[in-house]
Amino acid sequence: MSRHAFDDAIALTAQSDGSWLGHTSPVYANMVGPFGGVTAAQAMNAVLQHPQRLGEPVALTVNFAAALADGPFTVQARPARTNRSTQHWVIEVLQQGQTVLTGTAFTALRRDTWSADEHTMPVVPRPLDVPLLERAGRVEWINRYEMRFMEGDFPAAWDGRDHGISRTRLWVRDNPPRPLDFASLTALSDVFFPRIWRRRASPVPIGTVSMTVYFHADAARLRDVGTGYLLGQAQAQAFHRGYFDQTAQLWNEAGELLVTTHQIVYYKE
Amino acid sequence: MSRHAFDDAIALTAQSDGSWLGHTSPVYANMVGPFGGVTAAQAMNAVLQHPQRLGEPVALTVNFAAALADGPFTVQARPARTNRSTQHWVIEVLQQGQTVLTGTAFTALRRDTWSADEHTMPVVPRPLDVPLLERAGRVEWINRYEMRFMEGDFPAAWDGRDHGISRTRLWVRDNPPRPLDFASLTALSDVFFPRIWRRRASPVPIGTVSMTVYFHADAARLRDVGTGYLLGQAQAQAFHRGYFDQTAQLWNEAGELLVTTHQIVYYKE
Repeated sequence: MSRHAFDDAIALTAQSDGSWLGHTSPVYANMVGPFGGVTAAQAMNAVLQHPQRLGEPVALTVNFAAALADGPFTVQARPARTNRSTQHWVIEVLQQGQTVLTGTAFTALRRDTWSADEHTMPVVPRPLDVPLLERAGRVEWINRYEMRFMEGDFPAAWDGRDHGISRTRLWVRDNPPRPLDFASLTALSDVFFPRIWRRRASPVPIGTVSMTVYFHADAARLRDVGTGYLLGQAQAQAFHRGYFDQTAQLWNEAGELLVTTHQIVYYKE
Repeated sequence: MSRHAFDDAIALTAQSDGSWLGHTSPVYANMVGPFGGVTAAQAMNAVLQHPQRLGEPVALTVNFAAALADGPFTVQARPARTNRSTQHWVIEVLQQGQTVLTGTAFTALRRDTWSADEHTMPVVPRPLDVPLLERAGRVEWINRYEMRFMEGDFPAAWDGRDHGISRTRLWVRDNPPRPLDFASLTALSDVFFPRIWRRRASPVPIGTVSMTVYFHADAARLRDVGTGYLLGQAQAQAFHRGYFDQTAQLWNEAGELLVTTHQIVYYKE
């Protein structure tokens, strides 16, 4: 059985100086450079594979400093501070000696506590009752995800009107299905198309500048999800002078909140 | 006229190796170590004062790796990538050679574009129609802010019940008033008391692990705010096995969204 394309895409090879060698993946290509979600997953993977890692990911921030060129890259992941049950990571991705991504991560050994989801899952139809997006993506990475939109699909007409709301809701999972883990959940956190395209129905040039992912799910919960669907919801709060934000959630089919995630995105108009 | 306590607190002295020397401030003391908002502002200030800085802050992420000890600290701020109109920063704060904070920032020259606030300000009374919090804070930094709570004040009774919601709304500004700038707006992004204290009415031990601030306001808009009030709103989305998140907004009195900000916070219960 061949490996899933996502595993090939995020594969890293340990280098003698402690850094990791990776390679952009043509099957996750975006308009310019690769899908940022996979780049974020590659950065996360350098922490996940690190021999000194303590605990599971709780927070990740990646900053996209430049579009990656197709080809190899180096990931540096340094445990800047290790406490008794927590660890802070500094991450940098380089191509030809130039920084293309900066980031930080936080891992921790979790303990049982009182727990609750305050942002409850919206009431929506079941995944298989929602039509599958059949259109082939204009960019390759879109085809690597099974998307079933309930609200805020790609605009039917790019009419450039202000539609007044930027919210999208969809069921989503890897295509073909792949058991969920922290790396794929990182990539799925970036699966939403740009909020300004939705709000303005206009495909203006954009680029994610920074993305933060908070993992509320632990490894056991991810294993329980398996190849199930995630309900994704994303919405902008403000668009101002060239940058808009996005706040998003990912729940499993049982309604457990796995991730809350945020972005700030450049737009040109 | 003496300088505002906040300016004293965030003051940095340039060192010959390009780093900055700062000092914790007793008037912004928290339960253990200083108020994290001021630590974040100090990190931001190293970027703001940097001779190579390009543009204004758009995004900041700080990770609190350890409680700062009272005394001096060193801030390193490195422009990891400078593009034509954008710049990516890597930040680290050290005490006795140990990392106590890691972070990243993004600055940019903004351009005029179509703009809109999608998360509109809730309908609330005017600042002076809301009672001032008169209680002296149990910790010193609380006294450095004028707080007028409309919803989700510190629990009247620490009854340990699940109150079902963690939302807080308040009017807030520096005390005494100080004209708003990027440093003080950074600190104000951390002004909310822990969401679990609100939700559970129980003052359990907590500590912010990571905070991200997206600045939607530019310098001109901050100047217009002057010493006016900000409407702050904060709410958790999930509490799970030792960590909860917080999503928050800060508007000016005119209802313009200045900041959206997020945290992940450790809690023990």
